Amino acid sequence: SVSAVLPAGGSGERLGGATPKQFCAVQGRPLVSYAVRAMERISWISDIIVVVSPENIETMKTIIEKYGHKRVTVVEGGITRHRSIFNGLKVFAENEFSSHLLQKPEVVIIHDAVRPFVEEDIVSKVVMAAKEHGAAGAIRPLVSTVIASAADGCLDHSLERARYRASEMPQAFLFDIIYEAYQQCTDYDLDYGTECLHLALKYCKTNAKLVEGTADLWKVTYKRDLYAAESIIKDNLSQQVCVITSVKETLAQVGFLLSESLKSQIKVEAISISLSKNDSHLQNIISEQCYNFVCVTDKRCAIQETQELVDMLEKSNIPLLHPVVLISVHLDISENNSFSIGMEDLTTIKKFARETKKKNILVYGLLIQYK
Amino acid sequence: SVSAVLPAGGSGERLGGATPKQFCAVQGRPLVSYAVRAMERISWISDIIVVVSPENIETMKTIIEKYGHKRVTVVEGGITRHRSIFNGLKVFAENEFSSHLLQKPEVVIIHDAVRPFVEEDIVSKVVMAAKEHGAAGAIRPLVSTVIASAADGCLDHSLERARYRASEMPQAFLFDIIYEAYQQCTDYDLDYGTECLHLALKYCKTNAKLVEGTADLWKVTYKRDLYAAESIIKDNLSQQVCVITSVKETLAQVGFLLSESLKSQIKVEAISISLSKNDSHLQNIISEQCYNFVCVTDKRCAIQETQELVDMLEKSNIPLLHPVVLISVHLDISENNSFSIGMEDLTTIKKFARETKKKNILVYGLLIQYK
Repeated sequence: SVSAVLPAGGSGERLGGATPKQFCAVQGRPLVSYAVRAMERISWISDIIVVVSPENIETMKTIIEKYGHKRVTVVEGGITRHRSIFNGLKVFAENEFSSHLLQKPEVVIIHDAVRPFVEEDIVSKVVMAAKEHGAAGAIRPLVSTVIASAADGCLDHSLERARYRASEMPQAFLFDIIYEAYQQCTDYDLDYGTECLHLALKYCKTNAKLVEGTADLWKVTYKRDLYAAESIIKDNLSQQVCVITSVKETLAQVGFLLSESLKSQIKVEAISISLSKNDSHLQNIISEQCYNFVCVTDKRCAIQETQELVDMLEKSNIPLLHPVVLISVHLDISENNSFSIGMEDLTTIKKFARETKKKNILVYGLLIQYK
Repeated sequence: SVSAVLPAGGSGERLGGATPKQFCAVQGRPLVSYAVRAMERISWISDIIVVVSPENIETMKTIIEKYGHKRVTVVEGGITRHRSIFNGLKVFAENEFSSHLLQKPEVVIIHDAVRPFVEEDIVSKVVMAAKEHGAAGAIRPLVSTVIASAADGCLDHSLERARYRASEMPQAFLFDIIYEAYQQCTDYDLDYGTECLHLALKYCKTNAKLVEGTADLWKVTYKRDLYAAESIIKDNLSQQVCVITSVKETLAQVGFLLSESLKSQIKVEAISISLSKNDSHLQNIISEQCYNFVCVTDKRCAIQETQELVDMLEKSNIPLLHPVVLISVHLDISENNSFSIGMEDLTTIKKFARETKKKNILVYGLLIQYK
């Protein structure tokens, strides 16, 4: 089995703010919650251990509660990163830190709470490499030249950039190897070291396999990185819209025309289905994290259909991460000239929208009279 | 004298877009224009050489024209960064690249076109250090551990993070030293090297002085860095507002109350002056790059006062960088109940605003009747 440890004990000095960066809100949600969610989405990860400093344990538990995180255990960290990771690992091996000892995994992933955008693909590659080599870690090309300074503050030498790499996260290890390394290593390592791959090499003679990672693995370090994370999330949220109509011909046609006119600006999926049936195409779209839906109907009050979509979305856990926008369009193509929606219907829709908003699903109603 | 060379010939592969990053628009303005402007604002820099690849020379000239950059010479770059910098330096030493040979500076600054936020303070420190040591460069702590990989793609060793630094920009050199280094160095250096400090050390035995830089020196490399740059600029633009009133007591009081109610949200400077006199306090505020002004008056039509402020702003070159917002408030505290502004006044203000908009100054008129 595979489990994950997320050290989240840092103080975030480099960010220049009072709140440690892993607890800074990005689009209203703490950064650590994105990292937890990224791990949680990977079904083959059993346990997720989040290691936080003593003063943040309650904060972390509140976050887990609020965002409905599952499979997460909160562990008290040490005064350095290595000590925190060691504490996280102990949960699988010693009774000291947890009332119930968690099942010892074959492979343990170590990831940062401040790297919110890790994809299953790279996690999987790193885990496979760790199974084969005992240890593995994501790397990236260096952005700047690395130099060594002499005692007088002058340049001693510079490293040839092409020969070196930046060590990033995630990393993964055979549990027995990294746990052994932490047990063997010195206080100096625990207090001043920063690199888990180094411990595996030094104490277990395990040369980690290095895996090229993607640019989005970067670590949120400075305030500008929070800005960047926010923009990336916004970008993702507005990338796709799904237009849903019934199978009725006139409506399907409207759905087609709508998607044609939208597709120059956004990725559009148009589907004609009966919402009461559990449609696998729609399920797929939802699981690919579509956050925007337009539902076109000719029914007088489409609460029931909308409710079915809301139920599907809720079950998918998608709204846990970000608000879902759902526009319910009532298309009135009857010859009748008068408004076919009364105050009563309006009240019903408003009440419905208030309820779904609590579930992070924003429902908007739109009435179009077409003649 | 001091001059600067900005290599801007990169292809921006890492950004994943067709446009090289230095020409990507951030808040509607190409990144390179920010870097040029950052140098231009420093009065003691004589010439600014921007080195671009042949296909971008016209683009660069258009940018210089559009944003009114002064003291800039565009030079054709080579196929690598070092070759481009060398070309930039030749403008001061050989007739080949420029119809008129520019005056050879004592110190030359080398900065990146994709580092938009460099402040005079760090440039000045680096230049002073270069005068003393022959070479100097800004450095930053490493964000990730640096590792060396073996031929099999496994970890060979990791570097102790505290002993190394990331080499950033700006750098500065005694012109004769860096020019000598470029003349001496091999084709291999020119084609595969990345570090000017290394050339000065290798060919002129000059150990560069390393100067701790600020976090905002970072290099725009990935798409997320463009997002970050955009947010930083937006942040800066909305950080300060200046409330200007005449010395008349009632108006000064309004200015005071307005700034009191604004100051929880934004940095406010409130001043009471006669705009027709050249006020040094206001000049200071403008030169500290305030982009937001509220001008409160009780005159019937305050075009003249507003015009004086517009003139000051224009002379300051501030609107060249970003739009300036200027809200002209006409406070009507007379007992007279009727609107004291007619269609004629409105037309005058609108016409005025249309004119100033061309100068990147956005004028808004506001009429408040207070009883």
